[in-house]
Amino acid sequence: MDLSPLVATSLESSVGNSAGIMAPGMLPGKSHGTCGRDSSTSRKKTRHFSLGCGRSSLGLYATGTSIYSMEMVVDTNMKLYTPGPVHVAPDTLAVMSKHCDTHRSSWYSDMHEHCENLLQELMFTENQILLGAFTGTGFMEACVTNLLGKDDTGLFVSVGAFGKRWTSIARGHGKEFDILEFEMGKAAKADKIKEILERKEYATVFIQFNETSTGIRNPLEEIAPVVKDSGALLCVDAVSGLGGMKLEVDELGIDVCLASTQKCLAVPPGIALCSISEHALEKSKTVGNRGYYLDFMVLMKKAPKHQTPTTIAVPLVRALEYKLGKIIEEGVEQVFDRHSKMAEMTWKWANDAGFEIFPEEGHRSSTVSTIANNRNIDVAKFVKVLLDKGYRIVNGYGDLKGKTFRIGHMGDLQPDDMEELFGVMDETLVEI
Amino acid sequence: MDLSPLVATSLESSVGNSAGIMAPGMLPGKSHGTCGRDSSTSRKKTRHFSLGCGRSSLGLYATGTSIYSMEMVVDTNMKLYTPGPVHVAPDTLAVMSKHCDTHRSSWYSDMHEHCENLLQELMFTENQILLGAFTGTGFMEACVTNLLGKDDTGLFVSVGAFGKRWTSIARGHGKEFDILEFEMGKAAKADKIKEILERKEYATVFIQFNETSTGIRNPLEEIAPVVKDSGALLCVDAVSGLGGMKLEVDELGIDVCLASTQKCLAVPPGIALCSISEHALEKSKTVGNRGYYLDFMVLMKKAPKHQTPTTIAVPLVRALEYKLGKIIEEGVEQVFDRHSKMAEMTWKWANDAGFEIFPEEGHRSSTVSTIANNRNIDVAKFVKVLLDKGYRIVNGYGDLKGKTFRIGHMGDLQPDDMEELFGVMDETLVEI
Repeated sequence: MDLSPLVATSLESSVGNSAGIMAPGMLPGKSHGTCGRDSSTSRKKTRHFSLGCGRSSLGLYATGTSIYSMEMVVDTNMKLYTPGPVHVAPDTLAVMSKHCDTHRSSWYSDMHEHCENLLQELMFTENQILLGAFTGTGFMEACVTNLLGKDDTGLFVSVGAFGKRWTSIARGHGKEFDILEFEMGKAAKADKIKEILERKEYATVFIQFNETSTGIRNPLEEIAPVVKDSGALLCVDAVSGLGGMKLEVDELGIDVCLASTQKCLAVPPGIALCSISEHALEKSKTVGNRGYYLDFMVLMKKAPKHQTPTTIAVPLVRALEYKLGKIIEEGVEQVFDRHSKMAEMTWKWANDAGFEIFPEEGHRSSTVSTIANNRNIDVAKFVKVLLDKGYRIVNGYGDLKGKTFRIGHMGDLQPDDMEELFGVMDETLVEI
Repeated sequence: MDLSPLVATSLESSVGNSAGIMAPGMLPGKSHGTCGRDSSTSRKKTRHFSLGCGRSSLGLYATGTSIYSMEMVVDTNMKLYTPGPVHVAPDTLAVMSKHCDTHRSSWYSDMHEHCENLLQELMFTENQILLGAFTGTGFMEACVTNLLGKDDTGLFVSVGAFGKRWTSIARGHGKEFDILEFEMGKAAKADKIKEILERKEYATVFIQFNETSTGIRNPLEEIAPVVKDSGALLCVDAVSGLGGMKLEVDELGIDVCLASTQKCLAVPPGIALCSISEHALEKSKTVGNRGYYLDFMVLMKKAPKHQTPTTIAVPLVRALEYKLGKIIEEGVEQVFDRHSKMAEMTWKWANDAGFEIFPEEGHRSSTVSTIANNRNIDVAKFVKVLLDKGYRIVNGYGDLKGKTFRIGHMGDLQPDDMEELFGVMDETLVEI
């Protein structure tokens, strides 16, 4: 077996904690913008434009005493095939440009409640849904600060960069934890997790559903029962999976399932969401020093009103409601099938082009494909030339830079969009 | 003197911490939306519409393989005179509807850097500017977790609800602190602060520039020197003041000056900003258990690239850049004068209508006016009838509900907008 489980115990003060892990959806290297500029004042640096933007004047609107000139940029060339933030469709952007009432209005509460209902449907859960005025990493941190008490030990199961980020968070709070680390490109294995859980008592287990850095989908259907049997709480980071791959929260007994909006939900970044079980809420009450901003109890105080304790990005909640409605309308199974189909198309393209797929077979993500650079091409150049043609894919993550490249196929993308990309990539591979 | 300084020492575990303080810009009571709906699926609850929305079709755009129908709602009736989130102008909303590149692109970095430069100008500082993928409360919490070590005591100077919120945060982290509380409607007094600072050593002092709940502007020009003399760091919550009233960060030696976008900057809520001094950064390095999401050191790691460690709401940064440009274009002194003029107009209207101004003279905010209900009107009804006419002002905050009402005059509002409101309020006072 290829597994290299690595268990290290850590209980540290976070003075000078190392936190050099990169952010979700991080794209290495420099890129060239194609999105125009809005400010009337000069920047110290000049922006680079590599592609023109189709502009469409929307005329003049009078409001109050002022007249505003409005125009909207519709990019006809550039397409994001990124593992988030992803391409946001013009209709979603248009929703964000609508006038909103405040976050304390009944108008907002109704919208928030509707998001809760739609998310329960998408996540197959009856658990409480929370929206957060922060990113997915905020809910990752909330899981650590709310669900690991001072006498508890957490188990972090890591298959890549975002598994490691979770341990940086735990270290930053001086929490006691062990890390079970699997080789990059391999999925977490239930039997190894079981072995660890039998050896020691853990209060909470933390794991990624979909590891964005390697394109691995962890077999939660095998892992969740093992964790539940141990009596530990289970927190799942589904940031780059939710809305692209089926995840049955209640069936698996996931206590906290967290995600962001800028991945499969195809909404711009800025807010996060999670489902939370009664067990997790009960546990949270017993844990000290939970802080305020990420305290589940503070978040729960506003839950009956379908509001957030701090001022959430209302236009993004509006866009989320809109997109969730579109997903339910398309049909969740159809949406998952579409993602699965785009993933298979991508693997076939890669194999036809002489590339191998980096993540192990049977555990590959439907939302992002990590392609091994066994042909030894100049990945940075490949990415750059594609960008100049208006297509953004991304280099490998961290140590995998140059050794892999990643293609996101999530959110609003359709099989036809993938075909379009494959054609351009084939052409580009000949050129470089 | 009317002062009632109240000093209480607290060092508590945060198990079951009380965190019932309301959010910034919170609006009491239920409101009726006027902003339409976007989702294609049914909500369990029906939304209420009290006003029609002017709709303007923007036609059809083709992108990729899909065709999206876009329409934009332009509210011609409803106007927000709230202390945040405030009215967002259509041109700002239009900026948010533009296609964006990712938060790791050079396009984003240039935009972020431009925001830094413009904010330095607005804040009269050369300190590092940080943007946060969270709200102003997030930076309030960051000040607590980064600038109070385990042997430190913090001093929280409170003149209302947001001063108290800061102590809830400190309690949530088990930090040791004292609170110096002034009577609602009174400003903090430098001599009282000096007295406390001479009695005991404090690592950091926390204070509001503008207290949204009472409409008090604290005299930081008197308080800051007293704090600096004591050797303590000074953190200022300028959430509802920045961009509406002059605050010279470097002149006053403010170590962390934090704000949000949904107040005077007239951008939708969702991101926050602060300036941070070298002293504060040095202090942060020595403090343990700073966590991750709100760790100044983690935020600083991405600062040289003009990026954020987690995925910030890119469309909101774009709107912020646009609005900051407009403020600089109008002229910062002119913007402050406009706010000051609108405040004076509001006080005059109130006095002419037989109301007193709640906050003490000489320390009144230029951005939000709290009007005392000495006429004993039915404030809830007054607010409701105004809302039905398309004007949102807000009831008093917390215990001041019914005893006061608040009128926001910040952001994009102009003196003519205030005159319009005064006319409607006069008419409404006769009717109710």
